[in-house]
Amino acid sequence: MYAVAILGFGVVGSGVAEVLDKNADRITQGASRELSLKYIVDVREFPDSPYKDLIIKDFSVVENDPDVRVVVETIGGVGVAQEFTRRALAAGKSVVTSNKELVAKFGCELLQIAKDKGVNYLFEASVGGGIPILRPITQCLAANKITEIYGILNGTTNYILTSMIKRGASFDDALAEAQAKGYAEANPTSDVDGIDACRKISILADLSFGRHMDPDWVKTVGIRTVTAEDVSYAAENGFKIKLLGRAVLNEDGRIFAYVAPHLVPEENLLAGVEGVNNGIVVRGNAIGDVMFYGAGAGKLPTASAVVADVIDAAKHEHARKLVSWDEGDVSMMRDSAELESRWYVRTGEKQYITPSAQSKSSIDASLAGVEVLTLFRVLD
Amino acid sequence: MYAVAILGFGVVGSGVAEVLDKNADRITQGASRELSLKYIVDVREFPDSPYKDLIIKDFSVVENDPDVRVVVETIGGVGVAQEFTRRALAAGKSVVTSNKELVAKFGCELLQIAKDKGVNYLFEASVGGGIPILRPITQCLAANKITEIYGILNGTTNYILTSMIKRGASFDDALAEAQAKGYAEANPTSDVDGIDACRKISILADLSFGRHMDPDWVKTVGIRTVTAEDVSYAAENGFKIKLLGRAVLNEDGRIFAYVAPHLVPEENLLAGVEGVNNGIVVRGNAIGDVMFYGAGAGKLPTASAVVADVIDAAKHEHARKLVSWDEGDVSMMRDSAELESRWYVRTGEKQYITPSAQSKSSIDASLAGVEVLTLFRVLD
Repeated sequence: MYAVAILGFGVVGSGVAEVLDKNADRITQGASRELSLKYIVDVREFPDSPYKDLIIKDFSVVENDPDVRVVVETIGGVGVAQEFTRRALAAGKSVVTSNKELVAKFGCELLQIAKDKGVNYLFEASVGGGIPILRPITQCLAANKITEIYGILNGTTNYILTSMIKRGASFDDALAEAQAKGYAEANPTSDVDGIDACRKISILADLSFGRHMDPDWVKTVGIRTVTAEDVSYAAENGFKIKLLGRAVLNEDGRIFAYVAPHLVPEENLLAGVEGVNNGIVVRGNAIGDVMFYGAGAGKLPTASAVVADVIDAAKHEHARKLVSWDEGDVSMMRDSAELESRWYVRTGEKQYITPSAQSKSSIDASLAGVEVLTLFRVLD
Repeated sequence: MYAVAILGFGVVGSGVAEVLDKNADRITQGASRELSLKYIVDVREFPDSPYKDLIIKDFSVVENDPDVRVVVETIGGVGVAQEFTRRALAAGKSVVTSNKELVAKFGCELLQIAKDKGVNYLFEASVGGGIPILRPITQCLAANKITEIYGILNGTTNYILTSMIKRGASFDDALAEAQAKGYAEANPTSDVDGIDACRKISILADLSFGRHMDPDWVKTVGIRTVTAEDVSYAAENGFKIKLLGRAVLNEDGRIFAYVAPHLVPEENLLAGVEGVNNGIVVRGNAIGDVMFYGAGAGKLPTASAVVADVIDAAKHEHARKLVSWDEGDVSMMRDSAELESRWYVRTGEKQYITPSAQSKSSIDASLAGVEVLTLFRVLD
């Protein structure tokens, strides 16, 4: 028996159960064996769920059941999720997750434990929801030296910005609408302040550049300061405002990484990425630019990425996937203020885009004494 | 020693040699072993090539050398390429190729030979040049039932159409320009008549739907009939004309597949795919729509996809990749004329888009007796 256990029966966890059922034939074919969902671990009660007979409260049942070969961690956060992940790996079970916070912070260590135990730790769903991105980077682009990766990594903020662009809404109105529609949390900080995008660009940089990049090292600015005035100036000049996470490999081997709003030219495909969708661009020294696009969140899209990893873990039970990265330290980072670009500037008196690329230090110096209301990079 | 041989030292073959050299460190790391290029088989002489010492004329040297574990077939066509592929697989070597004609026509059989021999037959570079697409379909989207796949699959025709859109050029002028720039062959038939796109949509359908779809079963129309008038009418109404390959799984399990020019709405990301780039959309029952974008051809992009497969073959020498599809027959196809869509019609007197979706048979009937100059589908 090849059994699967789900930890955390929230949106993604319940989506995983649903996809395992709905597409069982295709999954069996892909994994070359039948997978059976044996346990769902959650402290809550779900008396009306069709899966209520599988729900247990005690993780150690999963940990000690040799039938369970893959554990799906959809708890989130770095507390109990981390503990259960470590214990599951230590018990020789592969772990699949959508938990970007845990992977961004502790992925390097958890991959090492998986390697020592000869099992897999897979997390395609942690970036870009259901969009295939991590596996393409590690496998399909393996013959490339990746020099840059950037994109729209957070669906909530893209939904808000799209509303501001299309309806001329203020940030507050657009946020309220996103909350009403369930696209933003009551406490929207992790989305609108760029924290979620920061975790995702960190994971993308880990895989692209081969070293752990701690999210704490990534200068992160969200979208609270974007105004309807900025949006309309951008539109008049052929740009759309998008929140981008970006990591650039410098010639000296160090990395510029940050999250911030950008003016994206309309002819760039990312400008056409609307609503809750994500778009991620990878630049390689042989392939040039490739872009991956799709639903960056949502129950079934994210669950389908989790289940693809479950299939992969089942298929590769005796041939561990070789995904890993080295430890890193802050000296590998360059100050993103030194990365040159054109800038969009709004002062009390005027709005303009600088004619040439310059560092943030340089534009700051040139604006000394001026009251700057908005200062965003232009993506060229 | 883990040696590689390249068959055919043309554009892609020489690009493979270049990428193996240029990114050797990353490739060694990815494959967890050093790969060495041992032979290049070509009947021509290359006295000035840095690889001239590796060039041999006799394929049987490769066939009989146990050091050679992976053979890269970049000859093209279904003649000698097919023979050497069969012999290499029979000799227990993995084969990697960019040869869409061979894969589209004989992929099913060649995969069976590879399976019997416990080796890999990989062909990521056969569709979309360097864009990761085949592996994402088979692995990352493995938890989805794929219901439709379509896209801009040929860079040459997209370059020509982009020139027509941007410069108002006629088809003949745009073709001549593409030929002058090296983007189109002196004999452009395989591109402009949609044959190349037909092979690619066939391979995509094979992988998406699990059965061999012969390119001969795919109704294929190219771009020779697109006029500047069509392009400008499209632009005035918010569309761009693009050549799409498309395969749709019908509810009865049969497949609609065809290649034809379409009017693509400007808000669709495919409308923004310009020049020689490709964009491919996959629709899954859990993920929704995902799009893959990048350079669809070119020496280094294509070579980087070939080398990624070489890395994968090296990494999985003892764990064959489980890619295959079943045999198919023409009864699995539905007549694409029955697939409904809106239509763009140009007669001697007027141009218009039909208000509602209908089959080709239906629009043909309604136009009986009218001289129809252009009839293209609208992608909705």
